[in-house]
Amino acid sequence: MAAGTAATVLVNGVPGSGVGADDRGLLYGDGLFETLAVRAGRPLHWERHRARLERGCRRLAIACPDAGVLRAEVEHVAGPFARGVVKVVLTRGPGPRGYRPAAGAPTRIVSAHSPPSYPPARASEGVAVRWCATRLGRNPALAGLKHLNRLEQVLARAEWDEPEIAEGLMQDDGGAVIEGTMSNLFAVFDGVLVTPDLSECGVAGITRERILEHAGALGIAAQVRRIPAEALEAAQELFLCNTLIGIWPVRRLADREFRVGPLVRRLAQALSEEDRACGP
Amino acid sequence: MAAGTAATVLVNGVPGSGVGADDRGLLYGDGLFETLAVRAGRPLHWERHRARLERGCRRLAIACPDAGVLRAEVEHVAGPFARGVVKVVLTRGPGPRGYRPAAGAPTRIVSAHSPPSYPPARASEGVAVRWCATRLGRNPALAGLKHLNRLEQVLARAEWDEPEIAEGLMQDDGGAVIEGTMSNLFAVFDGVLVTPDLSECGVAGITRERILEHAGALGIAAQVRRIPAEALEAAQELFLCNTLIGIWPVRRLADREFRVGPLVRRLAQALSEEDRACGP
Repeated sequence: MAAGTAATVLVNGVPGSGVGADDRGLLYGDGLFETLAVRAGRPLHWERHRARLERGCRRLAIACPDAGVLRAEVEHVAGPFARGVVKVVLTRGPGPRGYRPAAGAPTRIVSAHSPPSYPPARASEGVAVRWCATRLGRNPALAGLKHLNRLEQVLARAEWDEPEIAEGLMQDDGGAVIEGTMSNLFAVFDGVLVTPDLSECGVAGITRERILEHAGALGIAAQVRRIPAEALEAAQELFLCNTLIGIWPVRRLADREFRVGPLVRRLAQALSEEDRACGP
Repeated sequence: MAAGTAATVLVNGVPGSGVGADDRGLLYGDGLFETLAVRAGRPLHWERHRARLERGCRRLAIACPDAGVLRAEVEHVAGPFARGVVKVVLTRGPGPRGYRPAAGAPTRIVSAHSPPSYPPARASEGVAVRWCATRLGRNPALAGLKHLNRLEQVLARAEWDEPEIAEGLMQDDGGAVIEGTMSNLFAVFDGVLVTPDLSECGVAGITRERILEHAGALGIAAQVRRIPAEALEAAQELFLCNTLIGIWPVRRLADREFRVGPLVRRLAQALSEEDRACGP
């Protein structure tokens, strides 16, 4: 199966192909999504993804589907995949014209895909990243959410074609570094693990959350705070994370070289061990 | 036909019902839209809407459909409507997983709807409006575009239910008033027509553009500039506009009462005359 091809798509639980022209997910990006890794036919960290989806639904006042129903659909599409990806898209559903949300049933789209084919060296030896010119606008009402308004990420990811550049870093309009186009960012300053504050923009990733928890368990001092973009020059270690890549150390950012340091190694090992404990 | 019901939906020119689960319009809000008024079966101001769609496509690097093809589709769905609305949604189309735009054919969705049933007194006597707590994030890369990332408008429009409130005004995160949730805003200060600068956020509406042109033709001094929200208190006239409402004078904003003044009357008349000249 070609990379990224969906084996099965369930639309509201029924094998289907898409959504209606009046679906608010299409018209307004009025919805949320989750991306889950699949190992041996089972989704990893389901409970964390479910909990984030429910938090997102509360913030957007979307009726969250029953967790058991959603889990059954996720497991159904994941089943055939030894390794893969499940994407859950939840929109506010179809509605009459206009921005005003009407009471109605949300649309859930659950699909499984073959995994992205990233070179394994990205995790072991690190990656080269660049700065994106596209900035993130700030809006606390949407910050942290994995919502469907992703034009900023689309424009940022369109800024480069070079296959040797694995990711682009994005700043907010005040010059703080926030995240990669598809990943969260961590830096180490004087032995302290720091990740950008996401209270004004950015996506609060599940792997970011797990890394902060592991840091606590491992006795690694960690902070969530604003990081001016230029401060990254002084970092001892730098790394990216998301559900599908796990951790990618940053080897080069623009002209600055970084080593793959001891904290990133410890945290990557802790994540891997937790993943292995989750399934066969 | 119920208000807002679509009579016909054309998806890439074929009577259809929606888009695939891999459409980037659904997944990322990666696209644009236009809303056109229909009179006697024909779209009003087609050339302006077409030109704006093309400008938006250039900024987002989406391949704009052939203008003749699109016009034929718009006229086809508009045909049965004495009065109505045509909505054109153009997405970057389906694609493989990931934010990176791939070369591919965009998806165009053209639908006609019965018109919204606003009370005629809104245009003649004016409307009551409120402030929205939801702010607009600022991003010059997206400002002005009528794109599909509309969660801010959805959240803002969800802030009130009172039918006597016709619209909500939105500020950017710096406290400048930008627009209504579905309309552009004009104010009159000391006889000068002023509308907010939209270089950092907001939708640059077709009716806003027409009003600025009519002001020029009528010898009315006009400015496009930043307007601090609190400055509206001092306006002599205030009004809202969009393609479907034309002009609604603002009679009340929060506690402040406004009169329906001479400039709004002249501009509304000029718009109506132009619309009548466009068709039977």
